[in-house]
Amino acid sequence: MAKGLPKRSEDFSGWYNELVNKADLAEHSDVRGCMVIKPYGFAIWENMKSVLDAKFKQTGHQNAYFPLFIPKSYLSKEAAHVEGFAKECAVVTHYRLKTGEDGKSVVVDPEAKLEEELIVRPTSETIIWNSYKKWIQSYRDLPLMINQWANVVRWEMRTRLFLRTAEFLWQEGHTAHATEQEAVQEAEKMLEVYADFTEQYMAMPVVKGWKTESERFAGANETYCIEALMQDGKALQAGTSHFLGQNFAKAFDVKFSDANGKQEYVWATSWGVSTRLMGALILTHSDDLGLVLPPKLAPIHVAIVPIYKGEEQLNNIRKVAVKLQNELAQHNIIVKFDDDQQRKPGWKFAEYEMKGVPVRVAIGPRDMENGTAEVARRDTLQKESYPQEGLADKIKALLDEIQENLLNKAKTFQTENTTKVDNWEDFKNVLENKGGFILAHWDGTAETENKIKEETKATIRCIPYDSIEEEGKCIYTGKPSKRRVLFAKAY
Amino acid sequence: MAKGLPKRSEDFSGWYNELVNKADLAEHSDVRGCMVIKPYGFAIWENMKSVLDAKFKQTGHQNAYFPLFIPKSYLSKEAAHVEGFAKECAVVTHYRLKTGEDGKSVVVDPEAKLEEELIVRPTSETIIWNSYKKWIQSYRDLPLMINQWANVVRWEMRTRLFLRTAEFLWQEGHTAHATEQEAVQEAEKMLEVYADFTEQYMAMPVVKGWKTESERFAGANETYCIEALMQDGKALQAGTSHFLGQNFAKAFDVKFSDANGKQEYVWATSWGVSTRLMGALILTHSDDLGLVLPPKLAPIHVAIVPIYKGEEQLNNIRKVAVKLQNELAQHNIIVKFDDDQQRKPGWKFAEYEMKGVPVRVAIGPRDMENGTAEVARRDTLQKESYPQEGLADKIKALLDEIQENLLNKAKTFQTENTTKVDNWEDFKNVLENKGGFILAHWDGTAETENKIKEETKATIRCIPYDSIEEEGKCIYTGKPSKRRVLFAKAY
Repeated sequence: MAKGLPKRSEDFSGWYNELVNKADLAEHSDVRGCMVIKPYGFAIWENMKSVLDAKFKQTGHQNAYFPLFIPKSYLSKEAAHVEGFAKECAVVTHYRLKTGEDGKSVVVDPEAKLEEELIVRPTSETIIWNSYKKWIQSYRDLPLMINQWANVVRWEMRTRLFLRTAEFLWQEGHTAHATEQEAVQEAEKMLEVYADFTEQYMAMPVVKGWKTESERFAGANETYCIEALMQDGKALQAGTSHFLGQNFAKAFDVKFSDANGKQEYVWATSWGVSTRLMGALILTHSDDLGLVLPPKLAPIHVAIVPIYKGEEQLNNIRKVAVKLQNELAQHNIIVKFDDDQQRKPGWKFAEYEMKGVPVRVAIGPRDMENGTAEVARRDTLQKESYPQEGLADKIKALLDEIQENLLNKAKTFQTENTTKVDNWEDFKNVLENKGGFILAHWDGTAETENKIKEETKATIRCIPYDSIEEEGKCIYTGKPSKRRVLFAKAY
Repeated sequence: MAKGLPKRSEDFSGWYNELVNKADLAEHSDVRGCMVIKPYGFAIWENMKSVLDAKFKQTGHQNAYFPLFIPKSYLSKEAAHVEGFAKECAVVTHYRLKTGEDGKSVVVDPEAKLEEELIVRPTSETIIWNSYKKWIQSYRDLPLMINQWANVVRWEMRTRLFLRTAEFLWQEGHTAHATEQEAVQEAEKMLEVYADFTEQYMAMPVVKGWKTESERFAGANETYCIEALMQDGKALQAGTSHFLGQNFAKAFDVKFSDANGKQEYVWATSWGVSTRLMGALILTHSDDLGLVLPPKLAPIHVAIVPIYKGEEQLNNIRKVAVKLQNELAQHNIIVKFDDDQQRKPGWKFAEYEMKGVPVRVAIGPRDMENGTAEVARRDTLQKESYPQEGLADKIKALLDEIQENLLNKAKTFQTENTTKVDNWEDFKNVLENKGGFILAHWDGTAETENKIKEETKATIRCIPYDSIEEEGKCIYTGKPSKRRVLFAKAY
């Protein structure tokens, strides 16, 4: 913690990288594109996982586990899917090493070549639908609602910690239904689960909507998504949910007999969020001093820093701290009392600011005389002195307030940085000088979408659920349009 | 659930395979050696994970995540380690596929060959110690106590669901310490954590001990293990904990400066348990009717089966069932009320027996008249009628009793099937006709250990902690021995 971070206003990208490093969240490994998620970063991810997992179970899903490896031939069974996924993958070709001729190194044993290469899963639709074929015979086997927490690999060329890595952690839900309507409802419901999670836990507002055809998941009939706006005015796709139609059922020949004994193909969905949410969390709330965490996901809620000279003062402060810790523990509020004797209070203050601990309590000799404590909020950086009596209740309320404040702040930011634009000049101008979300009319063609992307790097993030029907003209071609779509440059 | 299982006494191996299949625990995938863990099996594993994870955290460990891939050259850095692990591994050689000449299939792009092959982790010591080098500079960075939940791959030729699969799920703890003593204590402590888990949660007694030199983990100075005895008289290694000395610190050059500024190599441990524990759980308690689960790990504790004619009877029974369900929910007891109208009670009874649900409650018209319910224990198969009034308390106590009974039964089995043997004839005789654990004297040489293994397939499972010092003669060579060791044929 010797030095601070680059300022966001001067070097946003450098600020992010340094923050991830200095807050001990993650680091690059020597393996190209793969990250090491460090304990503090992983604790935040575990908190996310635990909330999401409970939500999935509440909505009727069960966890299961499918193989890491996918036979190469599976990938080509669903035509659109292979086009989108089969390209940049890790390929296992051999199953044995042997000692090299120098007697020390190891080399791949050329005799241990696999008959069919195995792909490290980039997503699991194919291997899972291959199992579903065995599991589904009758309408009584439906709906089948399964989730998997897993690691996946996509051989990305340009990687950034959490935002884009070759290996990442995620969950993938894969459900099978008897009717199209039920599958569509499931895909929509899971998008709501994601949106509720990002708003209520990550304190990150999102725009819910449909992807355009060219931005859909490879193999999906419809992709629903949540899009969040980062502090630098760029969008980040935070989660997707796909209605897969009968595409995978047909590719893997998964039929069921309905109540009348008639054979039908099964309807499918898949949906996922990943460690990318960690990047979104950081980019939404953090500041020039470091990470800012919403209390509901913070591994440590309160850091207590004693300011003292000598053992006696420390012991007196410790009594107050331990009492506070015990009181807060009853509300599942996690307190760290930092009595490390080799670090100065100033160092500790900076450290907990860097790590985004929502509340810091400092207790010094004068506080002990007055029966007070100094309480600092990480979100606003405000400090205030409170009586030690009743402090636990005060902190409990303060944590709720911080959670709410972070969401409101992010909502305000999103509102202020969402601009309606009605012509091409304004579009380019807003994109260049203001950034953020742009609501504009589009003629509905992939051709126009592509041209806009080529000329400005802006993409259609989604067709928002709440975009109202109105007459308009495409900002690029002037052709008629019925509703605005959401444009932005994106992560 | 059309047919039952093979009898254990007639075909133990077939019984196990069929049980795993019929209880919906897991199945083979089309990918050689890789399994699909089905929702019911995964729910049991999740319960195991959650208990173990809490125990790891209580003992000061944090979770983190390291890359799936290990550069080939890392494996050869620790000489003993590469010897033990580098041989049967999945090797990634390419990172891209392309469309084949037929325009449909996909083929490996020969131009996308990795400069250095990547190994899918068979265990993570090497990749983790490569990170620890960056994380550890001073004694203030120690101890470093990290655990990882992950999938690993070892290219096994003969696989059995849960017991031996190419890919499996596990946790691997990796700790770094300033002193040899502290590292040894950590390795010993984690073995106690495992033993406590297997006894108190899995209801599976274990023998704690040291591995002989030839059975040690590749790269360890000492391997501690817990060995359990399965119903067929074969041993199963349920968990290991390794004191790694300074071997990995030296291989990856991980030094720390002590309080006096002197540079020292770090001392290490690693320890793990895996989905193999699922196999152990099944093989310890289950019977010819199916799975038997200790209540502490059961995904469903109580199944309520209504026996009725018509909606009115069902509705009356449902009221009683829902009340019971709510009362038990307060004690975290999970109840399934099975009012499926298309299955007969007899089918449901067999189904819940197959799935090892600890308690089954049947409520029929006569029960409704008498205000009673029939309660069946899965462990003893005993049935008894109880008043509906106070039934929740009765069931709560019964679940504790079942947990205890399963442990006692397994302990008795282990005691009865542990035989002291003092000569070679008796050794072969007991091994052949009785099986189980054999406590016998051994001269302490790897040569003798190997010969016994070659001649009988029995291995030294461990040198038990509680084996007392006594004069004796090696059963094979007659040479002097100071203590008995534990022999068995093993999974």
